[in-house]
Amino acid sequence: MAGNTFGQAFRITTAGESHGPGNTVIIDGCPAGLPLSVDDLIPDLQRRKPGQSKVTTQRKEDDQPEILSGVFEGKTTGTSIAILIRNQDQRSRDYGNISELYRPGHADYTFDAKYGFRDYRGGGRSSARETNVRVAAGAVAKKLLKITHDIEIVGYVKQIGDIVANIVDPEAVTLDEVEANIVRCPDNAAAEKMIALIEQMRREEDSIGGVSELIATNVPAGWGEPVFDKLKADLGKAMFSLPAVTGVEYGEGFGVATLKGSENNDIFINEGDKITTKTNRHGGMLGGISSGLPIVLRCAIKPTSSLSKAQSTVNRQGEPSEIKTKGRHDPCLLPRFAPMGEAMMAIVLADHMLRQSVARVDL
Amino acid sequence: MAGNTFGQAFRITTAGESHGPGNTVIIDGCPAGLPLSVDDLIPDLQRRKPGQSKVTTQRKEDDQPEILSGVFEGKTTGTSIAILIRNQDQRSRDYGNISELYRPGHADYTFDAKYGFRDYRGGGRSSARETNVRVAAGAVAKKLLKITHDIEIVGYVKQIGDIVANIVDPEAVTLDEVEANIVRCPDNAAAEKMIALIEQMRREEDSIGGVSELIATNVPAGWGEPVFDKLKADLGKAMFSLPAVTGVEYGEGFGVATLKGSENNDIFINEGDKITTKTNRHGGMLGGISSGLPIVLRCAIKPTSSLSKAQSTVNRQGEPSEIKTKGRHDPCLLPRFAPMGEAMMAIVLADHMLRQSVARVDL
Amino acid sequence: MAGNTFGQAFRITTAGESHGPGNTVIIDGCPAGLPLSVDDLIPDLQRRKPGQSKVTTQRKEDDQPEILSGVFEGKTTGTSIAILIRNQDQRSRDYGNISELYRPGHADYTFDAKYGFRDYRGGGRSSARETNVRVAAGAVAKKLLKITHDIEIVGYVKQIGDIVANIVDPEAVTLDEVEANIVRCPDNAAAEKMIALIEQMRREEDSIGGVSELIATNVPAGWGEPVFDKLKADLGKAMFSLPAVTGVEYGEGFGVATLKGSENNDIFINEGDKITTKTNRHGGMLGGISSGLPIVLRCAIKPTSSLSKAQSTVNRQGEPSEIKTKGRHDPCLLPRFAPMGEAMMAIVLADHMLRQSVARVDL
Amino acid sequence: MAGNTFGQAFRITTAGESHGPGNTVIIDGCPAGLPLSVDDLIPDLQRRKPGQSKVTTQRKEDDQPEILSGVFEGKTTGTSIAILIRNQDQRSRDYGNISELYRPGHADYTFDAKYGFRDYRGGGRSSARETNVRVAAGAVAKKLLKITHDIEIVGYVKQIGDIVANIVDPEAVTLDEVEANIVRCPDNAAAEKMIALIEQMRREEDSIGGVSELIATNVPAGWGEPVFDKLKADLGKAMFSLPAVTGVEYGEGFGVATLKGSENNDIFINEGDKITTKTNRHGGMLGGISSGLPIVLRCAIKPTSSLSKAQSTVNRQGEPSEIKTKGRHDPCLLPRFAPMGEAMMAIVLADHMLRQSVARVDL
Repeated sequence: MAGNTFGQAFRITTAGESHGPGNTVIIDGCPAGLPLSVDDLIPDLQRRKPGQSKVTTQRKEDDQPEILSGVFEGKTTGTSIAILIRNQDQRSRDYGNISELYRPGHADYTFDAKYGFRDYRGGGRSSARETNVRVAAGAVAKKLLKITHDIEIVGYVKQIGDIVANIVDPEAVTLDEVEANIVRCPDNAAAEKMIALIEQMRREEDSIGGVSELIATNVPAGWGEPVFDKLKADLGKAMFSLPAVTGVEYGEGFGVATLKGSENNDIFINEGDKITTKTNRHGGMLGGISSGLPIVLRCAIKPTSSLSKAQSTVNRQGEPSEIKTKGRHDPCLLPRFAPMGEAMMAIVLADHMLRQSVARVDL
Repeated sequence: MAGNTFGQAFRITTAGESHGPGNTVIIDGCPAGLPLSVDDLIPDLQRRKPGQSKVTTQRKEDDQPEILSGVFEGKTTGTSIAILIRNQDQRSRDYGNISELYRPGHADYTFDAKYGFRDYRGGGRSSARETNVRVAAGAVAKKLLKITHDIEIVGYVKQIGDIVANIVDPEAVTLDEVEANIVRCPDNAAAEKMIALIEQMRREEDSIGGVSELIATNVPAGWGEPVFDKLKADLGKAMFSLPAVTGVEYGEGFGVATLKGSENNDIFINEGDKITTKTNRHGGMLGGISSGLPIVLRCAIKPTSSLSKAQSTVNRQGEPSEIKTKGRHDPCLLPRFAPMGEAMMAIVLADHMLRQSVARVDL
Repeated sequence: MAGNTFGQAFRITTAGESHGPGNTVIIDGCPAGLPLSVDDLIPDLQRRKPGQSKVTTQRKEDDQPEILSGVFEGKTTGTSIAILIRNQDQRSRDYGNISELYRPGHADYTFDAKYGFRDYRGGGRSSARETNVRVAAGAVAKKLLKITHDIEIVGYVKQIGDIVANIVDPEAVTLDEVEANIVRCPDNAAAEKMIALIEQMRREEDSIGGVSELIATNVPAGWGEPVFDKLKADLGKAMFSLPAVTGVEYGEGFGVATLKGSENNDIFINEGDKITTKTNRHGGMLGGISSGLPIVLRCAIKPTSSLSKAQSTVNRQGEPSEIKTKGRHDPCLLPRFAPMGEAMMAIVLADHMLRQSVARVDL
Repeated sequence: MAGNTFGQAFRITTAGESHGPGNTVIIDGCPAGLPLSVDDLIPDLQRRKPGQSKVTTQRKEDDQPEILSGVFEGKTTGTSIAILIRNQDQRSRDYGNISELYRPGHADYTFDAKYGFRDYRGGGRSSARETNVRVAAGAVAKKLLKITHDIEIVGYVKQIGDIVANIVDPEAVTLDEVEANIVRCPDNAAAEKMIALIEQMRREEDSIGGVSELIATNVPAGWGEPVFDKLKADLGKAMFSLPAVTGVEYGEGFGVATLKGSENNDIFINEGDKITTKTNRHGGMLGGISSGLPIVLRCAIKPTSSLSKAQSTVNRQGEPSEIKTKGRHDPCLLPRFAPMGEAMMAIVLADHMLRQSVARVDL
């Protein structure tokens, strides 16, 4: 009962390691008839790829996807879609003592504890490299959501270190605004400070954490499956399945702790002949089911664990040692997180879109 | 593809409404040979039940479980275990206009949007009443974890409103300390203030939110299944599947946003011939796999949506109206949350305990 | 990873033993809005129940179902439906050496090998008693199929011992014709001989096997999910999950071994502006997907393993012994098989009906 | 809710079409530590491949697998294993009217009914070409079963047309005996007649059906999960998921119809301090759980639907037409069936091996 499959009706299964031949995803359950080509996958892969700007790792990986099945004459056939992204930057090199040392904050020790040994090259399966095929699958989900329901999903940087973006209307942020700067923060003034902070971190051979916010608009009311597969539950799992995510919250999130019910409840109103709520403190879900308002969630992202500066650790035998991670890592994970978060959000929503279509029988 | 099943190897399926005949859980995958009787289920059900103290709802429901199958001569047989808890406080009454009105903060509107109509009696399936059988199943999982690995799971109140408990060593908190006061906060001074605040809320016909902290100790390193069923992902889903949870975080949680990597990384050390980390900012999981350190998570719980004071809303036709929820609800959900959160944590851990046992083959 | 759940979109989970408190099923995924009451469950439970005629066991169990959830104001709510059937004929008795002896043909030995011990009372979970809740769930599935697609499912006895019924047009057999005699064979002349044979078996303290045929009409073309969840694969699993089934075949079945392709292929024709085939040797499925023609399958059912006459065996210690099963068992399983087979067929078809509704997107 | 995933603990997900870029399988749940390389996959792929002898299709496809992940330094890592087999014989050609015509006995019509259109090139996803990655996954499962339990799985031809092999001791048949002739029938005299019959079929532009028998030895008692995932149920599903299988039976199979209980029951005995049965009419499973005796099953395989001779049919518009399938197809599917059937049997057994390891807790 391993865990490389996600979703029920729109379901992805992935495989691949950082320095193996490549990463693969099989999407099962994408309905027949969706127009699809490799070109649909490229934009988000470009947003995710390493080496895209001075605030990311300088590793070069030009993720080129190949669709191996499930598409014929430009449309999905209803059968399973396999996508392969080969690893290109597999420098033949001496991995040295990395096979013996436990990098702080990484999964080296826990993989050894779990499996007895590990593919230590670049982190193997625990590397964030595996998320490239999630992003490819997310692009398919996004297209399905867009075509059928005009749903838009946008993720951006809300906070890095102490710098908090001032987003007046989160639900109105556009992809263009996000992509207007390399840090992906729609508050340009904050973005500049964030970029400076990240550059400082690189100079200090250190890293910094942050918060990403994700918004989905036009999700109809009624998606989410009580009592375990609530939309908030499946979105929460999706986000926590991404590397480095240490917290997830919706709407008011942890802020509810100091609120009274009379302050927190969103009042129902009738607006243009549609039932909605005056405010959206509930983040678009009530009882774990979408309310028709934008879905709003935030993820806390820890600072990159790999540091160029020396850290003390132990080796597999438990003997004290020291480790420096050579060069090419992100000093901050936030700029590249948005496409990963959006992809997982899209996959969850596509899954629940399909699931909702069998929730009732209209006789 | 409804969502009333949770878990893979240790799997629960539930059914039941607030005011129907009762709630049922079928546990599938509990190994044969575990000593079990109804008495094992009672203590946590008592901790969850309404009417247990002045800080909870005054509704009386004496949740009496019946084990319908899967246990023979005092031991589990390996076959599926069905447990039924009948509803006892089903006052025959006039539900009045509650069938037509949408209570703010509740799932009335979203259930209608999803299914076309709803069992409006006491919230039907969206009521937290369904959690009683989760708690019963959680008691089975706890016993399995305790007997096989000496695992302890403890939940308590960390914060209510502005009152934050001062817990010096969260990983050492005992069940006795938690149960020493009716609000379930192991900081007695804070507990008194919390109780006073809850009573004030009841007087004001209002409610208040908070934060619950949950700790699991003695979990061995190696549990959790990359890449989607990471332990943090499955725990996150479990917590978010509970009513009123709006945020979940592990270890440093949202605090990572302002930390540098050099501040956040936990350094590996060798302690008594065992590899561990000096600190536990990572909350017991690295790469989503347990590290052997205590698992630490926190849930944000929103203030009860039901209020005795009047709130404006609309009815099913979208016409403006007003609603007051009669009497018997919790002014704060925190005191009764601990057993629910612990139960879901136990179910996830039992599932991953079984899953880990097939992760490697020792030739 | 136990196995008490069946189906994906229309999914049942069961629990219960022969002589425990009762059997339970939770149906998850039945769409909201289906009219349903206990009365819908009774007829098939009556057809399945023991003691219904002289050709069945004389045990009396008047299976009375209780719907515990998921139905409100006469309609399914879309939430999970729990149904409980309590065991009534739990004679308090001395089970004697049955706890130590391995009954030939039964699962006593294999349960011990699997779980280390077993609930030996009446066979525990391996008794066919567990099928009563399958039949209840099947009645729900049948209603869903009937209301939405006018689908009819009929099972009957095709063969007992050497007596083979002559059914001129299997696809036209009605429930009334099946129920016209106690052995459930629509060929009345054969039925009489079958009844005589069963009575002879009872006198000889022996039992006899047979073949049951099941037909589903009005199933639309297009149901079934390549490549593993083909309709023939899921129906095959469903049938083999029933006790005593040792063979399953569709259409020509094992008869294809001696056929040429030119003899076996069904030719496509256009009939009343509908594409169909001239003949139905393919049993209503091509490539594992329904073709629109009636689905035709047959199950081989072994003779009852419990015999009143003495059989030699061993006990748990492997010591030679002898066993006679006291009295009340069916001398032939065929007359009571039809409702069980129909129920499983209905559950598979309801599952695939829902699954087909997300197979394509019509833009 | 598509159907391209099979298994629970040892789980495969496949994708690919007959004339697309290639076929892919992701194996999830193979335990870490199993020695594995591409060489382990080749032998069974050679047994399955087209063009291997005069009794198979003359199409040439030299199925060369590539392991894309999950193996490091010659051992499985516990993470998901992706295997890709590219299609090599993709002749660029005019598919002509095959896109419009419904081939008798094929899934063309049902795919159109299901998905609205289809990849008509070589049958697309409904072609048996997809089974090449099943065979690759099966080779992994076989190795796991062999190393841990010394389990052997052998499939062979039992019958083609009227020619029935005389196999004195099915449970003793070896792979070498099977591979001794091109038709894979361990009765050499029968094999010669079968070869002659197949050649005659090719001359007649026709095809012929048959029966394949599969045996698994050394399976321990206790595998199989009541009540739905019985070993016989999962094996049945596995076999019926293969193309052209129209019947499955175990042990006595359909022969039980004419047997008395006293004739059919296998008597328990003590043999060399091990409990077993004197005979194996039950085919190695009792109550759907393995008994420790060899598992014996048979599949009925229909004659190839593609015929060189003309057959009448209709086109997508329902207009009458005629079709001849050009040349390169198998005149009998039996010789190449053994590796496919063995693969699915191995996958089911590997799944249940892992599942059994969590069925009981030994305190």
